[in-house]
Amino acid sequence: MRLRKMGLVMAMMLAPAAQADEGMWMPSQLPGIGGQLHAAGFQGNPADLADLTRAPLNAVVKVGGATGAFVSDQGLVLTNHHVAFGVIQYNSNAQRNLIEQGYVAASRGEELPANPDFRLRVTVGFDQVTDQVLANARGKTGRAYYDAVDAASKALVAACEREDGMRCSVANMFYGRDFYLVKQLELRDVRLVYAPPRAIGNYGDEVDNFVWPRHSGDFTVLRAYVGPDGKPADYSKDNKPYMPPAHLRIAREGVSAGDYVMLAGYPGITYRHRTAAEFVDQVQWRLPTAVATMKALQDVIEDAGKADRQAAIHYASQLQSLKNNIKRFSGELDGLKRSNAVAVRQQDEAAMLGWLDRQVDAQALRPQIDAAMAQIADGNATRERDLLLGLIQSQTQLMRSALRLQRLAHERGKPDAEREIGYQQRDEELIAGQLRQVQRRYNAAMEKRLLGALLARYQQLPAAQHVAEFDAAFGRTPAELAATLDRVYAATKLGDEAQRLHWMDTDAATLAASDDSLLQLAAKLQPALLRIDDERKAHEGELLRLRPAYMQTLIAYRKQQGRAVYPDANSTLRVSYGKVTPLAARDAVAYAPLTSTAGIVEKNTGEVPFDAPKPLLDAIAKGDYAGYLDPKSGAMPVNFLSNLDTTGGNSGSPVLNAKGELVGLNFDSNWEAVSASWMFDPRYKRAIHVDLRYMRWLMDKVYPAPWLLQELGVPVR
Amino acid sequence: MRLRKMGLVMAMMLAPAAQADEGMWMPSQLPGIGGQLHAAGFQGNPADLADLTRAPLNAVVKVGGATGAFVSDQGLVLTNHHVAFGVIQYNSNAQRNLIEQGYVAASRGEELPANPDFRLRVTVGFDQVTDQVLANARGKTGRAYYDAVDAASKALVAACEREDGMRCSVANMFYGRDFYLVKQLELRDVRLVYAPPRAIGNYGDEVDNFVWPRHSGDFTVLRAYVGPDGKPADYSKDNKPYMPPAHLRIAREGVSAGDYVMLAGYPGITYRHRTAAEFVDQVQWRLPTAVATMKALQDVIEDAGKADRQAAIHYASQLQSLKNNIKRFSGELDGLKRSNAVAVRQQDEAAMLGWLDRQVDAQALRPQIDAAMAQIADGNATRERDLLLGLIQSQTQLMRSALRLQRLAHERGKPDAEREIGYQQRDEELIAGQLRQVQRRYNAAMEKRLLGALLARYQQLPAAQHVAEFDAAFGRTPAELAATLDRVYAATKLGDEAQRLHWMDTDAATLAASDDSLLQLAAKLQPALLRIDDERKAHEGELLRLRPAYMQTLIAYRKQQGRAVYPDANSTLRVSYGKVTPLAARDAVAYAPLTSTAGIVEKNTGEVPFDAPKPLLDAIAKGDYAGYLDPKSGAMPVNFLSNLDTTGGNSGSPVLNAKGELVGLNFDSNWEAVSASWMFDPRYKRAIHVDLRYMRWLMDKVYPAPWLLQELGVPVR
Repeated sequence: MRLRKMGLVMAMMLAPAAQADEGMWMPSQLPGIGGQLHAAGFQGNPADLADLTRAPLNAVVKVGGATGAFVSDQGLVLTNHHVAFGVIQYNSNAQRNLIEQGYVAASRGEELPANPDFRLRVTVGFDQVTDQVLANARGKTGRAYYDAVDAASKALVAACEREDGMRCSVANMFYGRDFYLVKQLELRDVRLVYAPPRAIGNYGDEVDNFVWPRHSGDFTVLRAYVGPDGKPADYSKDNKPYMPPAHLRIAREGVSAGDYVMLAGYPGITYRHRTAAEFVDQVQWRLPTAVATMKALQDVIEDAGKADRQAAIHYASQLQSLKNNIKRFSGELDGLKRSNAVAVRQQDEAAMLGWLDRQVDAQALRPQIDAAMAQIADGNATRERDLLLGLIQSQTQLMRSALRLQRLAHERGKPDAEREIGYQQRDEELIAGQLRQVQRRYNAAMEKRLLGALLARYQQLPAAQHVAEFDAAFGRTPAELAATLDRVYAATKLGDEAQRLHWMDTDAATLAASDDSLLQLAAKLQPALLRIDDERKAHEGELLRLRPAYMQTLIAYRKQQGRAVYPDANSTLRVSYGKVTPLAARDAVAYAPLTSTAGIVEKNTGEVPFDAPKPLLDAIAKGDYAGYLDPKSGAMPVNFLSNLDTTGGNSGSPVLNAKGELVGLNFDSNWEAVSASWMFDPRYKRAIHVDLRYMRWLMDKVYPAPWLLQELGVPVR
Repeated sequence: MRLRKMGLVMAMMLAPAAQADEGMWMPSQLPGIGGQLHAAGFQGNPADLADLTRAPLNAVVKVGGATGAFVSDQGLVLTNHHVAFGVIQYNSNAQRNLIEQGYVAASRGEELPANPDFRLRVTVGFDQVTDQVLANARGKTGRAYYDAVDAASKALVAACEREDGMRCSVANMFYGRDFYLVKQLELRDVRLVYAPPRAIGNYGDEVDNFVWPRHSGDFTVLRAYVGPDGKPADYSKDNKPYMPPAHLRIAREGVSAGDYVMLAGYPGITYRHRTAAEFVDQVQWRLPTAVATMKALQDVIEDAGKADRQAAIHYASQLQSLKNNIKRFSGELDGLKRSNAVAVRQQDEAAMLGWLDRQVDAQALRPQIDAAMAQIADGNATRERDLLLGLIQSQTQLMRSALRLQRLAHERGKPDAEREIGYQQRDEELIAGQLRQVQRRYNAAMEKRLLGALLARYQQLPAAQHVAEFDAAFGRTPAELAATLDRVYAATKLGDEAQRLHWMDTDAATLAASDDSLLQLAAKLQPALLRIDDERKAHEGELLRLRPAYMQTLIAYRKQQGRAVYPDANSTLRVSYGKVTPLAARDAVAYAPLTSTAGIVEKNTGEVPFDAPKPLLDAIAKGDYAGYLDPKSGAMPVNFLSNLDTTGGNSGSPVLNAKGELVGLNFDSNWEAVSASWMFDPRYKRAIHVDLRYMRWLMDKVYPAPWLLQELGVPVR
């Protein structure tokens, strides 16, 4: 808090490169930082947390791209309402709208099957495979290094998945330094047990997204089932509850400001250990350029939508997505500037390299680090072009379809295992689905204007970033570009759904020879896109080869500072620890770390998204909180705030107290923390959790499910 | 703070009817509440504050519709930047933009004359004149009572203003119970001495309006001059500084959270002592209906503006004003609901009447109170009609001009003293100005649509609210209305500025007989408007006669509760006292009561309105705050927050510490407090002040004016 009171200059000097409580630790690292854990308040034995395939961490499961946890010995799983939303939606219809009404299974027999593609994954293996992955790569460079790593990884995965019911993947830790084979048991019969109404589970919706103070009951209870033989099985009424190897126990008491908490989950991706040059690129070029380019597309859609109501409807979702990305990127940029991230990272890296140069192994490492940095700089040479080509492929419908059809036909010429990810046999259903969706999201005039906006920017790039095939296809002047787009879009048949799906079943030669104007265009562009893809892989291969020297140096540098280094997040199980923490978001603004039911009433307008259900408002008015009140504040808690280190993927992560008991459920972070994927600033980084006292009170007093509370092992009051 | 933690029901039960620290006290009341003042922390003698024509309160002056204070014996006046904005604007031009650059007079000779109509008023007399005002009213009722009060007041004012340089008025205290003759010395030569740049004085502008935390240097220093004879005079270079009878002294130290503060100023109008029925009317009908009607007008302007860019420009100011009013009225409604104002006032009034019925003087008072309540209920019978007629006269340009021309001609038939206020000789310049402004704000199609929207609502009113002249003039069906508006607006010459001004000099008979379509229409409506005006005055006369019984009962009831009653605000000098106070605005949101320069940097975007000037940003980066830092927080203060009781008109009010020294300058209140004109809710009512340490630091380190600091009697660091 005192930081907020100092002048800017001092605050900048003190802006932290890293701090206690920062860190998404691999469980195996926890014994090594046991001192820190105990100093923070942990009362257990860090060694008990070291193996993610043993209790209690094997109670933490992957739910889609997010997290959940077993909370009973009969397979009950607790996750977020927004993570299980598809399950609720799947069981809703006009007669029985579970989204609006919520769902309370009256007994185990009334638990409702999830959508058939819904999956829970329990991690059962986590083994170092660095030597296997790199065996054939060592001595190679560039594209060859990339291909060797890729082939070894695919082979390990294929071997691992030979065991029935297993999904496997290779996780890259420390940017190519270590590789782990992750083996997960995949449960396919998952059922809906308890969900609050949308107006509780998603109270505040987009308005409150990224907002603290928050008042959302963002939780849902599921149950995993297996076949009579105890093995993963598709849904069947003969299935029986899965008996997990471990489950978390719900705490009798809650937490208050300053209390120790920890969290386990599957954070998706962070960039904390990127080089200073990559921070410069992100802050000074990538975020502002992406925002400016997306704003140009937003302007096109809004402007064209004024004159054409139907087009406005077709592009509403794309517009919303652009706006969300613009907001999020702008927030990330603001945050990185506020944290002075570039200067902090530059100073830290310079100090690290200065230190390295005084060490004996500098001679071995420094050339590789310099080469990595040169490679990174090299990648920037075409960044403007690459951004535009990416947007051309993501912000169009027909153009994207044409390119995808050509690429799919091309990939089909290889054995399935060698096909590009996204174009393998298992991806074909998804591609067909995307080809079908085009109809609801396409308008020829709009697509021409969007493409025109992007290609106009491309035409203005310096010669070194130009691509011969693109110049030939679209011309080099605005007039040629406009004429080409008019001609191509007037003639193509790709706007017809049956045609698109028909072409999906056509071979490469036929497709390349097609007289469809847009397929022809895509055929001309494809060699360039394949070439650029090759160049990208060669670039990534070099970075895979060279970055470990940078990471090794960072780890050694931190070690002599007395600090451990966690790998950047990569969707593997991580643990973070910290405290229930208030937030001084701005000058003179202090947010308390617990919200209360009074805030639900304050926010309530009676209209979506602040339309708390009557049973909830009645229960609040009645105030029957005995056994659930926070003893310090005397209020009924709803959500709480911590400084736990999280990112996307941590949704649904269980939050544990000092004794390892479940006290909360992670579901969001604050707006000030959107830049945390690059830098953890302890002044602003917070995570937002459902207080389990709120969940228990709802299950006890508002939408009662006493049998479930009993199974969860908590008293009914 | 604890209130925030309880359930809604308990919070409602505790919602306060009135509280310590509430009150806009007449200075003469302060000795009577001396115990409260001392308990709150006041260190002076309340008797010293009892006479507003003696030091120190005669240092507090009226500046336009707001407040200021003498701060040196040579006539320096401190007020808000926004209060003196016209003076700054008057002295700005393309070559020398003082709005953007600010102004620091290098010496007394460089002080710049204000616009000639700018006035400072020093209160020199404040005498009870109840007997004189009511002498001829007693025994009368309705319109006769009103006219007797009006005539007596005008006679008193005329006699008072016979003294050269005086402006006088009669102030009505406690709704007709007491009357005071206010005599003010009017100073006409005022000069600009020191103003910060807009980006300091109005940092945050509309975005931060009503917002806490705030970071605005909303202050300006003026100096009053008089003629060589010491009497008020128009600007002349021979004038000399006015030597005020008293001036306030600037404190060496600042205030911190919890410190006693008090404020003196000219609050405009409050409704705190209105009846419960008037609270019901305000909350359940007036605010929601006004918002809905204004929103309909907003829709018309926005919709028509889409098709006609020029019309959009002409109506931009009216649209902004509608939006501001909609926002403000909605905020007032939200606040009154949040404070449960209707129920609180109803319970309080019922308790008061129950108490009265047990007193000996109930027989004398109760019938009058009942009659007052019946009269108030009676006024509601035509409230829908009156709202619409009011908007027809305020939201149109040509229609308003026609009605005003007819009314002016009508009023000119009377002696000037008997003319309606707003139509006296001294008002004619203002009317001419308004007639000239029409050109920039008028569009025939838009005005027809606005009038159409209002009159369509009028046509749907029940028969009892219809006015024969309006029905005759506009027809009784939408079709007749549309045809009438088309015909009238096609034919009228009122759109021509020269014509309008010419008609201003035309007598009533000629105007009544004019063949201009809109003047003819206005002539037909005028008898109705005059009749409605007469009815309003009769209604107000009855309330003037009957309300004192209600107020007398309230005062007696509060007295037996041990509490004093302040009169509702009426633009006379009042004193409020309280503390520097944080704000718990919402669940888990706490605002500290002091902001710091760090917040200026946080908010700064480099774009209006968050474009702090470079000299300020440089000085903040330099951090040369010695002697100005807040000792408790260690930060450089900018603004502070108190629970002082204020309303519109308190802008520029001096804020004093426990010793009566100047520590702040009031300039705004928080959004949660917009409902305070009806109810003071101590949980939410706050006032926002410039911390004089910030002003002194700016004058010392950023835009230095050492000679001015010396005259202000504060050290240059």
